[in-house]
Amino acid sequence: MRLHLMTWPQVEAYLAHSTAIILPIGSTEQHGPTGLIGTDAMCAEAVADQVAKALGVVVAPTLAIGMAQHHMAFPGTMTLKPSTLLALVEDCLLSLVRHGFDRVLMINGHGGNVATINAAFAQTQMELDRLSPRPALRTRLVNWWETPEVMAASVRMFGDAVGSHATPPEVALTWALHPDLADPHPLVPAVAPTGAFFGAGDFRNSFPDGRIGSNPSLASPAAGEELLKIAADEMTRLASDFFA
Amino acid sequence: MRLHLMTWPQVEAYLAHSTAIILPIGSTEQHGPTGLIGTDAMCAEAVADQVAKALGVVVAPTLAIGMAQHHMAFPGTMTLKPSTLLALVEDCLLSLVRHGFDRVLMINGHGGNVATINAAFAQTQMELDRLSPRPALRTRLVNWWETPEVMAASVRMFGDAVGSHATPPEVALTWALHPDLADPHPLVPAVAPTGAFFGAGDFRNSFPDGRIGSNPSLASPAAGEELLKIAADEMTRLASDFFA
Amino acid sequence: MRLHLMTWPQVEAYLAHSTAIILPIGSTEQHGPTGLIGTDAMCAEAVADQVAKALGVVVAPTLAIGMAQHHMAFPGTMTLKPSTLLALVEDCLLSLVRHGFDRVLMINGHGGNVATINAAFAQTQMELDRLSPRPALRTRLVNWWETPEVMAASVRMFGDAVGSHATPPEVALTWALHPDLADPHPLVPAVAPTGAFFGAGDFRNSFPDGRIGSNPSLASPAAGEELLKIAADEMTRLASDFFA
Amino acid sequence: MRLHLMTWPQVEAYLAHSTAIILPIGSTEQHGPTGLIGTDAMCAEAVADQVAKALGVVVAPTLAIGMAQHHMAFPGTMTLKPSTLLALVEDCLLSLVRHGFDRVLMINGHGGNVATINAAFAQTQMELDRLSPRPALRTRLVNWWETPEVMAASVRMFGDAVGSHATPPEVALTWALHPDLADPHPLVPAVAPTGAFFGAGDFRNSFPDGRIGSNPSLASPAAGEELLKIAADEMTRLASDFFA
Amino acid sequence: MRLHLMTWPQVEAYLAHSTAIILPIGSTEQHGPTGLIGTDAMCAEAVADQVAKALGVVVAPTLAIGMAQHHMAFPGTMTLKPSTLLALVEDCLLSLVRHGFDRVLMINGHGGNVATINAAFAQTQMELDRLSPRPALRTRLVNWWETPEVMAASVRMFGDAVGSHATPPEVALTWALHPDLADPHPLVPAVAPTGAFFGAGDFRNSFPDGRIGSNPSLASPAAGEELLKIAADEMTRLASDFFA
Amino acid sequence: MRLHLMTWPQVEAYLAHSTAIILPIGSTEQHGPTGLIGTDAMCAEAVADQVAKALGVVVAPTLAIGMAQHHMAFPGTMTLKPSTLLALVEDCLLSLVRHGFDRVLMINGHGGNVATINAAFAQTQMELDRLSPRPALRTRLVNWWETPEVMAASVRMFGDAVGSHATPPEVALTWALHPDLADPHPLVPAVAPTGAFFGAGDFRNSFPDGRIGSNPSLASPAAGEELLKIAADEMTRLASDFFA
Ligand code: NI
Ligand code: NI
Ligand code: NI
Ligand code: NI
Ligand code: NI
Ligand code: NI
Repeated sequence: MRLHLMTWPQVEAYLAHSTAIILPIGSTEQHGPTGLIGTDAMCAEAVADQVAKALGVVVAPTLAIGMAQHHMAFPGTMTLKPSTLLALVEDCLLSLVRHGFDRVLMINGHGGNVATINAAFAQTQMELDRLSPRPALRTRLVNWWETPEVMAASVRMFGDAVGSHATPPEVALTWALHPDLADPHPLVPAVAPTGAFFGAGDFRNSFPDGRIGSNPSLASPAAGEELLKIAADEMTRLASDFFA
Repeated sequence: MRLHLMTWPQVEAYLAHSTAIILPIGSTEQHGPTGLIGTDAMCAEAVADQVAKALGVVVAPTLAIGMAQHHMAFPGTMTLKPSTLLALVEDCLLSLVRHGFDRVLMINGHGGNVATINAAFAQTQMELDRLSPRPALRTRLVNWWETPEVMAASVRMFGDAVGSHATPPEVALTWALHPDLADPHPLVPAVAPTGAFFGAGDFRNSFPDGRIGSNPSLASPAAGEELLKIAADEMTRLASDFFA
Repeated sequence: MRLHLMTWPQVEAYLAHSTAIILPIGSTEQHGPTGLIGTDAMCAEAVADQVAKALGVVVAPTLAIGMAQHHMAFPGTMTLKPSTLLALVEDCLLSLVRHGFDRVLMINGHGGNVATINAAFAQTQMELDRLSPRPALRTRLVNWWETPEVMAASVRMFGDAVGSHATPPEVALTWALHPDLADPHPLVPAVAPTGAFFGAGDFRNSFPDGRIGSNPSLASPAAGEELLKIAADEMTRLASDFFA
Repeated sequence: MRLHLMTWPQVEAYLAHSTAIILPIGSTEQHGPTGLIGTDAMCAEAVADQVAKALGVVVAPTLAIGMAQHHMAFPGTMTLKPSTLLALVEDCLLSLVRHGFDRVLMINGHGGNVATINAAFAQTQMELDRLSPRPALRTRLVNWWETPEVMAASVRMFGDAVGSHATPPEVALTWALHPDLADPHPLVPAVAPTGAFFGAGDFRNSFPDGRIGSNPSLASPAAGEELLKIAADEMTRLASDFFA
Repeated sequence: MRLHLMTWPQVEAYLAHSTAIILPIGSTEQHGPTGLIGTDAMCAEAVADQVAKALGVVVAPTLAIGMAQHHMAFPGTMTLKPSTLLALVEDCLLSLVRHGFDRVLMINGHGGNVATINAAFAQTQMELDRLSPRPALRTRLVNWWETPEVMAASVRMFGDAVGSHATPPEVALTWALHPDLADPHPLVPAVAPTGAFFGAGDFRNSFPDGRIGSNPSLASPAAGEELLKIAADEMTRLASDFFA
Repeated sequence: MRLHLMTWPQVEAYLAHSTAIILPIGSTEQHGPTGLIGTDAMCAEAVADQVAKALGVVVAPTLAIGMAQHHMAFPGTMTLKPSTLLALVEDCLLSLVRHGFDRVLMINGHGGNVATINAAFAQTQMELDRLSPRPALRTRLVNWWETPEVMAASVRMFGDAVGSHATPPEVALTWALHPDLADPHPLVPAVAPTGAFFGAGDFRNSFPDGRIGSNPSLASPAAGEELLKIAADEMTRLASDFFA
């Protein structure tokens, strides 16, 4: 169930028997020469939808723009300041908890969001701690691509070429959703360099086409479908435990 | 063209001949007993997509959550603090202007966003004014439902029952997108009361089912299709002028 | 009654029978070659004073500096960041509501303030919504120059030369207050150009002497007196309804 | 010269030979049973006006609302959060420095403002330090009632009954401006208690009628006129040195 | 070299040959019935001092108070809001980079700080990205207790009783620094429970004496000395690589 | 008693009979050619420790970094924005008051902190004023070097060469703590110039070696020991009164 496709009386009825909700979050950022700018949001949303279907849980609108400062030297990237993203997540959580949602699972598609989201969780708890009576809120953040079975499948499929940005698993998943946009032409070098990065300029110097350690040309819609299924099943189990 | 479905080299190529972009914004809020919580975001996005198709312009991800404080007494509504929404819009604009986008048209689906978006436009100009060299940014906000031809058509179709929240035009438009969710059963009263409102509790006291002055039971998928076409044509002309 | 000329026991006595207050707001910004920098604050305050006299209502100190970023390329202009003005208005409202003032009418003299004030109204409601018990606050913003009778009189007096900045109505009103500062010498061009504007530099490029679409040389102290009377009478009726 | 009564070309002409400006600041707060709520703003403004006349210097609009949290248990008091006042003063200074004003003298009427204004001075310098080229800004804050000659005159006139809030000097000064509002009826106790205070409730517990250590019944319009003259002369010398 | 024990000419001389600096950060929070409230700051500082000695690198003052919201139900805990800690770390980094320090290693003693520090790194890069010319800053965060050799030694020493809060390794390290404060009396239960936690109240419900999964009674000054040596050696190698 | 060396049950026991706490604050800034960068923090902490010993009162961790914007042209200086320091102090106070500490004495080592700390006191009271039930918090700020007996002793020891930055009293105190770092070599000029300062660049222009009006070469460890004793005795009496 997508929250945006429900009416308020339907939400009211839902809350009578469940206080669980999923809040997907992605990013709007370059994903190498062939990956889509919306990759992270599309992946998080796709996994969230499957979990929702399996568990009958509500999914809030995907936060499509995250913290992508380090990608800003590539056109099309959009980023929030961490302080803005922190406020955004806090406001979403305070909105949900006001209605009685007290289990919020954030399914995340972008590593750059993790720190700020966790900071927002703490800040929201601090805010709730000041109000009386104090509602109990439980939040959890899961990166869809980092659960054990998804990681195992990724390595099984793509070996050393998974990398850490514009990875074949995330690219494959978006190609499963949009097969017409699949672009598996060979890249040079096949596997992108790896390393640390700091500011946006520094990132582009080190990773001129935007990829880090990955070869997204290995991706395919079929691989994406398989990965989505694995991710959805595993995340469903995780969500089911968290919402219990 | 949806930004999230492009690659960064495609955005780079686009920027070589156009610096225009559309940024849709909606809200996640109750829309009466039969309207969808995502109505405002869905309408803004649908109109934006049509304009983009007509003009070959890029559309950034829809900001799905806006300022809906006054709807917070109805479950499912999510709201940002105005100061958060201000920062969110400013960050989006500063991201875009960094890449060279200097004409940003925000197509808006929710009246409650207008004030804060305009405040964000001014704050962004103030920030750009401090940087040197100063990039020139032009922004414009248009509420899709308030352009002359859309308003005329709305009155022609629904007369006195348009109202100002959970209106038949917006509801019809979402039903055109999701005919299976159309729910035209008669409401009581047929036309909701009107009046001023202040805080969230006050709103629900005055408008117990969430509608203001409207009768969304008059909506239909067919009316929605017609309205979408009118809105898209008119907005395309407006956008074309603005981007010129 | 001006709040600043009262003692606290007088305010306490007032609150026993009325919880209404007027909060005027203006701006400190260029008003063309002959208009005063304080025009917007002086107009709002003058109208507020008349309403206060007619209704026996308290008037808080005028907020003399508003959001005038777009006028910053003209010396003498002062501006607040929208986020600062938002906080300023919120703090004023929270101060007033703490004492029991729950009807606050803001009489505004500057279009550039509108968005941020409305954002502040919402943010204040959100803050009050979190406190318990929740005080009910009603706020209203009225631009003195945009009420129907004032607009009709403006057109009747100045026809096409009203324009939208450094307008003959506002200039006339200040000249009624300070006849010695009246400066009706002809300007070139007589009627200033109109158009859109974005940042401060852009504004000055398009409107080199600061006026937009107006011919303030048509103003006179006598016209100002007449307009002040019309505005005061109409605003008194509006205020009386709002405070009822 | 009051900035609000000037036109922008007059400001431009002024800046060609002087970059000095006075920014008065007061407070809107209880001043005991007989003192006016606007006392602090009226005093600061009156002194500033005299200095301006003597030196031919521009005076910006008075900031009428300051930091008066500790007076909030008395009706009519308005307060800004320190963080809001800090932003307000910073924005004013950044506005002025952009036009070339680089000597800003703040004449202050309220002790509760001092800390936050000084914090704002530092924050503004930090902001300017980041911009390039770095404009040099000099700011100075003077409390009108604390200069040596004013203090000596105050003690000479009122002895031990000066106190520290709702003092006879400030009350006298406002009565000089508004003789019709003079209310020298005896208070009980004649001299109010003194002591430390913390929060707003604590303040009212310790100082039930709002005065601290003062007997404003000793004030008179004549004393106020004399004090205003002393303050104006002394402040003019201070300002002249600072602006040199 | 501790920065606080240097003079500015010594810092100037240092910067002529090295731009590296260490910034330790801890927390002020409960550490179970026998652990010290300053454990995290003491551990981070002790390791930082050893690295500084080994490499001849400057150490900035330890940030002793971090983000410890979840420990706030235990007296003595102090916490910053994440937004405050974010600003604090950003200001420290901007101060250092202004002088030319462009390699900043933060040695951290508290898991609750990690998210916010990483958010601050990104926000600082965003700020630097707006300034021109853009200084290149490299930052790195290392949790002293999570490096491979320290973790291996911890398990070797304490097996399953390491746990995740008030752990024997961190407690041992503080006892090595303050042997007189060692308090190895047996606790009940010997090993504390484990599990997730959310708000402060929730934390204390789940972990009534403040420990998570640990048995700090196994700690000893001798074990602390050994661990400090292992941590210092390993961190020195890490720092040496980062500063290279 | 240093808070960081206590356990939470010890704090709980302490709170049963006392709600007093000392919070020292310093700065990390240049102190002339021979003074230590950590001078202000070391002095405040040393005095606080003596008071704590005398009164059996708890001392929270020293805030080592303050507001030192004006010293930023000298390498090694670190500064917080005033708005950051304000939030930092507010968070510390709100943390303490939550546990029941309601008398907080801040012993300060740096003049540049005073304004912002006082602003933070007011902001904290405003925050507490909104919560219910309202805890009563008393805060006090004392600059260790400005108490009457310390000032008298300083003048007795160093005459006209005390000055206002990098003063012999503060330098002597740090040399008493670190005799090996004493560096009393003659400076040129012996006594530094005095005067006003504004931004950081302005400061360094006026005071090229960082000192203001002082001759720290007159300092000695012995003088520092004597001053520390005087300061500790006097501050103990002040603290005892405040905590009573
Ligand atoms: Ni990705
Ligand atoms: Ni709508
Ligand atoms: Ni105007
Ligand atoms: Ni006063
Ligand atoms: Ni720890
Ligand atoms: Ni010092």
